[in-house]
Amino acid sequence: MQPSRTLAAMRLSLELARRGTRGANPLVGAVIIDPDGTILATGYHRGAGTPHAEADALNRLGSIDPVAARAATMLVTLEPCNHTGRTGPCSRAIIDAGIGNVIFAVADGGAVAGGGAETLRAAGVNVEQGLLEDQAAELNHRWFAARAAGRPFTTLHLAQTLDGRIAAKDGTSQWITSPRSLLHAHEVRARVGAIVVGTGTVMADDPRLNARDEHGEPFASQPRRIVMGQRDIPGDAALKADGNWEQVRTRDPHEVLARIASRDIGHVLIEGGASVATAFLAADLVDEIFLYQAPIFLGSGRGSVGELGIDTLASARHFRLDAVDGDAVRILGPDTLTHLEPMPTGTGTP
Amino acid sequence: MQPSRTLAAMRLSLELARRGTRGANPLVGAVIIDPDGTILATGYHRGAGTPHAEADALNRLGSIDPVAARAATMLVTLEPCNHTGRTGPCSRAIIDAGIGNVIFAVADGGAVAGGGAETLRAAGVNVEQGLLEDQAAELNHRWFAARAAGRPFTTLHLAQTLDGRIAAKDGTSQWITSPRSLLHAHEVRARVGAIVVGTGTVMADDPRLNARDEHGEPFASQPRRIVMGQRDIPGDAALKADGNWEQVRTRDPHEVLARIASRDIGHVLIEGGASVATAFLAADLVDEIFLYQAPIFLGSGRGSVGELGIDTLASARHFRLDAVDGDAVRILGPDTLTHLEPMPTGTGTP
Repeated sequence: MQPSRTLAAMRLSLELARRGTRGANPLVGAVIIDPDGTILATGYHRGAGTPHAEADALNRLGSIDPVAARAATMLVTLEPCNHTGRTGPCSRAIIDAGIGNVIFAVADGGAVAGGGAETLRAAGVNVEQGLLEDQAAELNHRWFAARAAGRPFTTLHLAQTLDGRIAAKDGTSQWITSPRSLLHAHEVRARVGAIVVGTGTVMADDPRLNARDEHGEPFASQPRRIVMGQRDIPGDAALKADGNWEQVRTRDPHEVLARIASRDIGHVLIEGGASVATAFLAADLVDEIFLYQAPIFLGSGRGSVGELGIDTLASARHFRLDAVDGDAVRILGPDTLTHLEPMPTGTGTP
Repeated sequence: MQPSRTLAAMRLSLELARRGTRGANPLVGAVIIDPDGTILATGYHRGAGTPHAEADALNRLGSIDPVAARAATMLVTLEPCNHTGRTGPCSRAIIDAGIGNVIFAVADGGAVAGGGAETLRAAGVNVEQGLLEDQAAELNHRWFAARAAGRPFTTLHLAQTLDGRIAAKDGTSQWITSPRSLLHAHEVRARVGAIVVGTGTVMADDPRLNARDEHGEPFASQPRRIVMGQRDIPGDAALKADGNWEQVRTRDPHEVLARIASRDIGHVLIEGGASVATAFLAADLVDEIFLYQAPIFLGSGRGSVGELGIDTLASARHFRLDAVDGDAVRILGPDTLTHLEPMPTGTGTP
């Protein structure tokens, strides 16, 4: 097949991948083309618990004649998986569909999910890898880093004023952002496996930390509630409403993530307060940020982020706007929501 | 004419008005319709030095037969002006065009420009006022307030990190925001009559404070450079490059604005640093904000806004997103630009 056709299809796969949401699973897109480069089906992964990109594309392809399947090529941004998790292995699904050729961008490399290429080859599928590999690796650079470190993917929630405050001088903080912003924050809660808050937040706000819809009703899926810090929290704290919580008595975010990983949770929301957010930022353990900003000034009071050990501008911690799953900046009622991810290594200083 | 037709046309006038830029002149839109409600021409004011909305609409109308003109109605969001400034009086232009009917939303009320309605009536034009008056008044609420106080309209420039910092611990601050943001800031400089900076900014950065295009070339129109503060600034400060500057030896923003008003300057850009921005915000003398935000964290260093005398969240200073002249939030290279205006009086607490 002409290289320009496979290249165009892989570009489309990357574009499709960006429609998904970041989290426990990587962003993956897949396109199936015939030998003329005509697109037969497309797919992408929408997030943990939903079909992988390959399965999504195969579902949309439906049944085609075996000769056409054998001649078709799937272009997928990540090596098809080889294991049975919440969904079956993609390598098996591709073989069962009779697809004759697979080109993937970046190898999986994980001990659990990796090895799909080998399975495909053993079944007689032509497999190539490396097309647009750098772009595919960069798309999920933090997910790869998190997996390599054996820790969950982390999303940081920040809700602040225009001048970066999360509370006024007298400690009042409810509510800085609007109901629209809170609703979005709850939707993010519903897609993670755990939420981390500090003991200070429990003392100050006594949050329930469950994920609720616009009617205040809990979503079906609820995250585990993790309290981080040394201090005892009240016996009647609202977050203790059921057994799905625990306290990790440490100020070290690595320890918190290790505990969460031990619970087999792949995606955690760092919800606050400032000390917790600062600890994760300082340790470079933030993989994604949702920054909610209300159009108000306080001029004093607690800042959203504290001491990061940065003395000079050249050492600032660099993020970049992230247009995955929609626009990088959205208007939520009176507020703005900015979606950010860390700059890939080596590109931090412009 | 059916009220629904004039109402629809006035709504369109308000929408057109919002395409302009805030500044020395109010935002104004105008629509000319025939007795059936058919739109004959539309216009709006693009900013100081360009035609008023009425003149813009009349220019687009071109010449029409006198009977049709007599039957036509102009809907304009502000009372047509009565004075000869950089453009001729609109009341005269409407009379000369033979337009028979004028409906305006809100009275001008100014000693200089007001009285247009009377001039029109004296010439035999049917004049009504008050249609969508509240919306028209709110659109320019800060412009009306500034004029009532006899002071220039003010635009505040803030350029900060995600956590609201304008300098790192060691004082380094150049450049937090990107060249794309700087270019936008220079375009704003080119449309104001004066720029205000504090003595601290002059000492720290020695800015030229002229308005330059993307090639670094000065724009044709350059603002007057105003230094605010008690301290002497160096004799060879870059902003002294020509005679178009002065120092106002005060920390009181009212005094600064009074001096600028005495120079017959109607629009001023408050450019920094934090002490100057804080003084204007604390005195409620900011009519518009351009907030540039770079996707970085510092965690320490100087904040963009200092003590505003606000103790509790309920007393926060409220702004709102302003979609005048484009989107309320724009992406400028790696940065975001948020356009804000103060909440109208009485709506500050949601």
